[in-house]
Amino acid sequence: MIAKQCVLDKGFVRLIDQMGSDRRVVEAVRVSTGTVSDDPERDRKLIHFLIEHGHGTPFEKVVFEFHVKCPLFVARQWFRHRIGSFNERSARYRRFDEEYFVPDFSTLPEGYTADDLAAYNEALHHAYATYERLVAKASGGPEQRARAREVWRGLLGTSFYTEFFWTVNLRSLMNFLKLRMHPTAQYEIRQYAEAIAAMTREAVPISYEAFERFVLSREAGSI
Amino acid sequence: MIAKQCVLDKGFVRLIDQMGSDRRVVEAVRVSTGTVSDDPERDRKLIHFLIEHGHGTPFEKVVFEFHVKCPLFVARQWFRHRIGSFNERSARYRRFDEEYFVPDFSTLPEGYTADDLAAYNEALHHAYATYERLVAKASGGPEQRARAREVWRGLLGTSFYTEFFWTVNLRSLMNFLKLRMHPTAQYEIRQYAEAIAAMTREAVPISYEAFERFVLSREAGSI
Amino acid sequence: MIAKQCVLDKGFVRLIDQMGSDRRVVEAVRVSTGTVSDDPERDRKLIHFLIEHGHGTPFEKVVFEFHVKCPLFVARQWFRHRIGSFNERSARYRRFDEEYFVPDFSTLPEGYTADDLAAYNEALHHAYATYERLVAKASGGPEQRARAREVWRGLLGTSFYTEFFWTVNLRSLMNFLKLRMHPTAQYEIRQYAEAIAAMTREAVPISYEAFERFVLSREAGSI
Amino acid sequence: MIAKQCVLDKGFVRLIDQMGSDRRVVEAVRVSTGTVSDDPERDRKLIHFLIEHGHGTPFEKVVFEFHVKCPLFVARQWFRHRIGSFNERSARYRRFDEEYFVPDFSTLPEGYTADDLAAYNEALHHAYATYERLVAKASGGPEQRARAREVWRGLLGTSFYTEFFWTVNLRSLMNFLKLRMHPTAQYEIRQYAEAIAAMTREAVPISYEAFERFVLSREAGSI
Repeated sequence: MIAKQCVLDKGFVRLIDQMGSDRRVVEAVRVSTGTVSDDPERDRKLIHFLIEHGHGTPFEKVVFEFHVKCPLFVARQWFRHRIGSFNERSARYRRFDEEYFVPDFSTLPEGYTADDLAAYNEALHHAYATYERLVAKASGGPEQRARAREVWRGLLGTSFYTEFFWTVNLRSLMNFLKLRMHPTAQYEIRQYAEAIAAMTREAVPISYEAFERFVLSREAGSI
Repeated sequence: MIAKQCVLDKGFVRLIDQMGSDRRVVEAVRVSTGTVSDDPERDRKLIHFLIEHGHGTPFEKVVFEFHVKCPLFVARQWFRHRIGSFNERSARYRRFDEEYFVPDFSTLPEGYTADDLAAYNEALHHAYATYERLVAKASGGPEQRARAREVWRGLLGTSFYTEFFWTVNLRSLMNFLKLRMHPTAQYEIRQYAEAIAAMTREAVPISYEAFERFVLSREAGSI
Repeated sequence: MIAKQCVLDKGFVRLIDQMGSDRRVVEAVRVSTGTVSDDPERDRKLIHFLIEHGHGTPFEKVVFEFHVKCPLFVARQWFRHRIGSFNERSARYRRFDEEYFVPDFSTLPEGYTADDLAAYNEALHHAYATYERLVAKASGGPEQRARAREVWRGLLGTSFYTEFFWTVNLRSLMNFLKLRMHPTAQYEIRQYAEAIAAMTREAVPISYEAFERFVLSREAGSI
Repeated sequence: MIAKQCVLDKGFVRLIDQMGSDRRVVEAVRVSTGTVSDDPERDRKLIHFLIEHGHGTPFEKVVFEFHVKCPLFVARQWFRHRIGSFNERSARYRRFDEEYFVPDFSTLPEGYTADDLAAYNEALHHAYATYERLVAKASGGPEQRARAREVWRGLLGTSFYTEFFWTVNLRSLMNFLKLRMHPTAQYEIRQYAEAIAAMTREAVPISYEAFERFVLSREAGSI
């Protein structure tokens, strides 16, 4: 199991837990059809058949728990995938650290210079310094300090890092990968999708192989 | 872990797999608030607080896999709980056995006699015999035999037993228990809910204790 | 609007209400991109582009309400589509009528005769007569009569007709059609899918046209 | 119908469309129980009974479409309610305007001064000016300009305004109101919940009355 993979300049993905594997997918189908098999090659063919013909429910039996650290703007895209459960760090109970995403120079459109990145850093640092000073100024009990944290966080750009736990089944996970590994997805979330994909390939190698063969490599209308 | 519990005259519930436990619920909250604790009593208080105040998402981190055998009319009520994943045996690929639910005499309204139950058994046996004869008569390839099984199963009453796998998180599970352990739920599904509850109590004792204290024992408007 | 379409021997589909149309899909996208257009041809191209490239969320803005009458075994397949809301007639509060599905002779595998259908009818009639007699025998208050209805319905085959209301958005509806209009779907549910498709084509002609062109006509791995 | 209600300093909520009403809820139940009624007082009692006893599915028949403009940090809380469909303006296709939320002085904890708000405004203006300059500098085709918009938006604080369309059924809407009108919810999202509540009360007066009586006014454990 890949314990942890670093992503972007300060983020990561960790696979914390897993329920079921390729074998569980096969068992879920066997309860339907009443057949049995101890032949790994038949199991493999069955999994390929399921994905080729869009039979997704057996893949809902395999569930993963990930721990993710990513910029807020990546988290916003991630949370749009509604099937799955998210627990995020709270900006009310925890003060943000001065940790924000700085884009890699190579990923910028042509024409930008080191001065532009310096201006980006300077503006984010200035916003953070203001946030930090205003939050520190809060007097009174825990509720007043929580109110200060929740109202002044509006200063912080969506490049600031957040963390969350993600519970997701293999079917939804493959749907996430299909959309977020696509060349039209934003570069930054694609880095996370690639890291998740590498962990998924290790965790359920046969399902991933079928997903790559029949879904990832084809361009087709879907709904 | 309670491996298997018999329910009704021919049914059962088996807990096949589990991801996470009471501890996982606590960890999911700690990622939000940024606090740590090694004090079991504080963890217990936190779980009670979450349920008392309706904070359900941390309980979505704990996931169970059950194997269930029950009458079709119970499965129909069960599948109305949409959050969770079901894989059921197929009436197209598998022939039904002559296994149907016979109500316990003590659960019938007053006035019914042994003769009434005999008439019930006779009618279901007659329907099954017709189903068996018609399915056996199918000639041709696997597709024709599958068509025969799928069309003639319409003969079989909803008292016939089916089997399915159920993947469900702890939050949805508690919602299922709240509705299906209620005195107004049908007697037969209540027996399944009681069996699931006993397994849940063993698997996540603190969460179950809080559920019993703040949800099961209170009658309140909800949506 | 097609008010009502008959399906199978005794069933129907009625389109009761609709929120939004092709125009609403376009508006939902325009709020994203901030563009405006009064050119119907550009709107049509936009809708085709969305479906060709799998951008499904704008189609969640269009919602339909259907009233369906179908055999229980069709309803069981229908309810497996979890995104959507179902309200079904209750076998506890309403006595079933003697209305069950009789397969069309032309849809049976070779080798079956009129005598076989007669045996099917006889067994279902016999089960119904037993159900009717046992339900009628219930004495006592409304609760005892409800208990009688809910326990003796186990006699009735899944060919008996039920009714339900279905609230569903256009995205989930297209997913339902894709799976249930497929040649491998059971003949009986395909008849319902065809009826729903005809109503959908009238209600949202451009979306349906794109769905037919990019989804229905292509065979591709999906998840 | 309340066409539009202003919220916070620059936001709003508009009710764009509605499918079904109190009457539809009643009809959905009548299909279950097979009863009919033309007595408005009986309909009212039925709706109150449903909410008092937690029968939520009939309220899924009523669907609303809202148009919302709110700060990003409010949208982030809103989107955590997964049942419902969101279409948001895209930061890739549309440049952000310099429109950010400024907290009302009366909602701040004690001890803050006009100078603090001035510092808040200054930092956000500075970040916006940097964003504007960097986005304007993008050369090349539409893809390069889209990349510039998506990467530099990380500068903008979560106090910046966004817009989205929200499709939601009455059951999920009441759940949203229960959680977001609660005194422990953040002040800013509570203002939106209050505006939505006023529109809901007008759209479905009987359902809202029952919701207020049995859900809003009671404090009870739930899951």
